[in-house]
Amino acid sequence: MLLTLLTDFGTADYYVAAVKGTILRLAPGTVLVDISHEVPPGDIETGSFLLRAAVPSFPDGTVHLAVIDPGVGSDRRILAVRTPAAYFVAPDNGLLTPFLDGVEVRSVERDELFLASPGQTFHGRDRFAPIAASLLRGESLESLGPVIPDPVRLPFSPPAREPGRISGRVIHVDRYGNLVTDVPAAWLPAAPCRAEVAGHATSRRASHYAGIPPGEAAMIPGSLGTVELSLNGEDLARAWSVSRGAKVDITWNGS
Amino acid sequence: MLLTLLTDFGTADYYVAAVKGTILRLAPGTVLVDISHEVPPGDIETGSFLLRAAVPSFPDGTVHLAVIDPGVGSDRRILAVRTPAAYFVAPDNGLLTPFLDGVEVRSVERDELFLASPGQTFHGRDRFAPIAASLLRGESLESLGPVIPDPVRLPFSPPAREPGRISGRVIHVDRYGNLVTDVPAAWLPAAPCRAEVAGHATSRRASHYAGIPPGEAAMIPGSLGTVELSLNGEDLARAWSVSRGAKVDITWNGS
Amino acid sequence: MLLTLLTDFGTADYYVAAVKGTILRLAPGTVLVDISHEVPPGDIETGSFLLRAAVPSFPDGTVHLAVIDPGVGSDRRILAVRTPAAYFVAPDNGLLTPFLDGVEVRSVERDELFLASPGQTFHGRDRFAPIAASLLRGESLESLGPVIPDPVRLPFSPPAREPGRISGRVIHVDRYGNLVTDVPAAWLPAAPCRAEVAGHATSRRASHYAGIPPGEAAMIPGSLGTVELSLNGEDLARAWSVSRGAKVDITWNGS
Repeated sequence: MLLTLLTDFGTADYYVAAVKGTILRLAPGTVLVDISHEVPPGDIETGSFLLRAAVPSFPDGTVHLAVIDPGVGSDRRILAVRTPAAYFVAPDNGLLTPFLDGVEVRSVERDELFLASPGQTFHGRDRFAPIAASLLRGESLESLGPVIPDPVRLPFSPPAREPGRISGRVIHVDRYGNLVTDVPAAWLPAAPCRAEVAGHATSRRASHYAGIPPGEAAMIPGSLGTVELSLNGEDLARAWSVSRGAKVDITWNGS
Repeated sequence: MLLTLLTDFGTADYYVAAVKGTILRLAPGTVLVDISHEVPPGDIETGSFLLRAAVPSFPDGTVHLAVIDPGVGSDRRILAVRTPAAYFVAPDNGLLTPFLDGVEVRSVERDELFLASPGQTFHGRDRFAPIAASLLRGESLESLGPVIPDPVRLPFSPPAREPGRISGRVIHVDRYGNLVTDVPAAWLPAAPCRAEVAGHATSRRASHYAGIPPGEAAMIPGSLGTVELSLNGEDLARAWSVSRGAKVDITWNGS
Repeated sequence: MLLTLLTDFGTADYYVAAVKGTILRLAPGTVLVDISHEVPPGDIETGSFLLRAAVPSFPDGTVHLAVIDPGVGSDRRILAVRTPAAYFVAPDNGLLTPFLDGVEVRSVERDELFLASPGQTFHGRDRFAPIAASLLRGESLESLGPVIPDPVRLPFSPPAREPGRISGRVIHVDRYGNLVTDVPAAWLPAAPCRAEVAGHATSRRASHYAGIPPGEAAMIPGSLGTVELSLNGEDLARAWSVSRGAKVDITWNGS
């Protein structure tokens, strides 16, 4: 069985190892793959984005364990979710927002699964790992707890379009400084258009980074099917001082 | 067989990969799990802490290879240790201090295991990996070398208590800026008490981070059974300018 | 089957996970080992160095997938290479320079292997992973495309020697601040000699770091068989303000 891990634990602490050791102790033979542990502490939006972006590449039946959990130890619920292609275990704080529609969402209420714990600060090791291990051992999702109708969801402001204008947002800034937006690349008009972010603008379009003239920004269809704004070999987020959440306006004449 | 790796190699170099490749070449089928490679260069205390914290989560029989080895190439010994639950391979420099009591500690003296080496700077690849591989292949600990009575130990200053006062230290600062102390949470009095570190103090106690009012520090029972000092969603180590080793004093009236 | 991964993706994005998920979906059971994902963006020289340094440690038959690919989406070719000991898949941009002599180098022209893609920015997931998976599933290298005579190579300026003088370069600065040079350690004379880099010099030689007096730099035979310049427990690259590419001159009297 395959388990992915997404956390905000970083890799300098013992936290990721303790989760992995617990998984391998309770579900021997599990294959572990890291999505990322570099999510900024408590940044549920970034965690949710990474999960949404990575999950479609994994084989059917993969269990995805995501622990970005500023509410650890509080009465926030723990969710276990089954979609057609995968299982998810995560705190009920919006992290699983992209996967909650039309699927089975359960609140885990199997206290006897949890490890005896010296405190309430490390549910990743003491609760989430044993829950994931139970799925990896083949126990049913149903056995974990009741279906709930009201999991927490992140607020969602979808991109919008009207004749001559698309409004969206930067939903991710990647390592290279590319501005990943939520604007579907298919929405771009055939006509020339102009993208504006944070007071900077470009009308250039390209199909790949190396096709952009040095020092110029361009719109490019990105790896998630949405528009990216990018430089060729340089960091646009730094050059334009843009971070996640910035508004993107794309405009053109005619419709 | 399961092998964990703890080093100060970082992840930008080829060092971790060379150790893993060597393990997989000499002990095919080994499952590898990273504890951390972000130990500050030569920081044996941090390495020892991480090992102590992570090891209990792993299955019995796991081999733990730890290479934080500023004495590489010198005449420092290489240790192979068996505890009831695990095997350890590490330089004899104090890294294994938490695991040395009442167990079998051997000095590895099997030069024929070592790889032909262009230099004496990378025993991780050329000596430690082959030693670990021999255990992973099922060779006995006894075959590696003689029992020794005097492995190097880190100095240890345990926390102390007297009526109305506990004295301890910050033994780790984690990614979130939590101050992990060596004071057993069970030592805290039922009465109100006051923790002081580096000229800052708090009398607040909480069971989990989200239960702490914004901007206030609190004592919290942490994931190792000791007291942590924490903020809710912010970095207390930065706010109080505290680093590992700082003294912690907890005081109260009466006993 | 064993696959290593070397990229400049970093570990904060979903990119590495998407490649791994794709590999595990298309070639179930593959064992994955990271070489590094911290190659600076687009830094083909560093990628090439790490690959050359790490590969000899891996078992025969390992597939090495390297994606440092500033030309992604352009008409640069994708290479598949077989050496006596390993397979390689990488963009045709010089990354495989250390492995191209006297071996079978093919240009991958099997478009039907590639994943349907929303854009041309993530060939790591959409092209490189499926190519590597085909080798991992046991498909032949021959089936991937034709042999080509002219793969791109990085410029190569080998170290030189004449009586009383060796000229080389710093080819890597590692995490500890060691200056790894391209000067074979076997070239050093038996006589005393003097190494000069960036206006700093040392005449000291040592066999291991702990044998260097505090604060002094020394020449030391390193883990790749070449001369390193190092301090004992401190960062020489920082102390001498040296980075990769710096010239190294080693001189002595007589020959």
